[in-house]
Amino acid sequence: MPRWDPRAEDRLREAALELFLEYGYENVTVAEITERAGLTRRSFSRYFTDKRDVLFAESEQLPVALAGSVRRADAALSPFEALLAALLDIAGALADQAPLAAQRRAVVRASPELQERGRTKFADVTAAVAGALRDRGTAESQATLLAEVGVAIFRTAFDRWTDQPDGVGLPVRIREAAAELAAGLGAVDFDALPRP
Amino acid sequence: MPRWDPRAEDRLREAALELFLEYGYENVTVAEITERAGLTRRSFSRYFTDKRDVLFAESEQLPVALAGSVRRADAALSPFEALLAALLDIAGALADQAPLAAQRRAVVRASPELQERGRTKFADVTAAVAGALRDRGTAESQATLLAEVGVAIFRTAFDRWTDQPDGVGLPVRIREAAAELAAGLGAVDFDALPRP
Repeated sequence: MPRWDPRAEDRLREAALELFLEYGYENVTVAEITERAGLTRRSFSRYFTDKRDVLFAESEQLPVALAGSVRRADAALSPFEALLAALLDIAGALADQAPLAAQRRAVVRASPELQERGRTKFADVTAAVAGALRDRGTAESQATLLAEVGVAIFRTAFDRWTDQPDGVGLPVRIREAAAELAAGLGAVDFDALPRP
Repeated sequence: MPRWDPRAEDRLREAALELFLEYGYENVTVAEITERAGLTRRSFSRYFTDKRDVLFAESEQLPVALAGSVRRADAALSPFEALLAALLDIAGALADQAPLAAQRRAVVRASPELQERGRTKFADVTAAVAGALRDRGTAESQATLLAEVGVAIFRTAFDRWTDQPDGVGLPVRIREAAAELAAGLGAVDFDALPRP
């Protein structure tokens, strides 16, 4: 075994996902993950704190990265445009994650504990993005609404992207989901809705 | 003490919220709640399973109620219109909850455990609404996107309604948040966004 393996982190992640899908997340130990990857407990600890971390480590930077991108977006952009520009910016950096992401999602979906953890992660993303929008001058309650909708667009686009490995990139999926929402909301006839 | 008190549930809820705000949710016992309300442990158990339930019992019916309303909405309405009609429908039933809701929100915000519980609740609402939209013929991945956006509109409207006790009703706040989102998204210049 080489003393330094640039692929160690990926190998551990791949081994963990395989095992989680084969035996169920709850039934897999870190020892089994390292054995399957042909690595040691020490290498595991270099990249992950525990087995749950294997699933969430990559999204750890998402709140800070997205918020930073919102803050840096062209001052001429509207709040929604700045938000979408930030999502497109981040999407570029995730280009190589589609295959693992689909497996990861299957594992998370099978466990209430992991779903809860995923929701906490997305709440952190929403809070960070809302903070960045406020820094651009968006009012508090509008910033939270936009951030929640931005996260919904991102999640939908990400799921479509990983579900349909047809070469359509994540940025295209983000534009598509946002345009779909704009068209749907734009066509709402508010007069046709029940009156208070 | 009367053997049957139609106000017992409200008195327990009010006593609990007062105590949570005074001493912190973690530090309050069910015995203290019933003592403050002048009621017995038995009356408490008639309405709530535990102290956390005091905060969430009212939203227990929300997933089923909203999903039912989406399914019953006029078949001529678009998916987004059906969703908004359902939100407006439910909003009518919540008219008397504004004062307690603001206190409740302050309690939940102060506790990570309760925030997590609240997120799980909203995830249940989203899943139920998405299911109802699929029953109306909306495609799966679009149904989830619309449901998430609908829940974001509802939460924003609810928070604005409870934050600003100025007589503006929840249905008006829902229309306002939806219109705001429609305007913001409608004005997005997709050509001004970064290209992949």
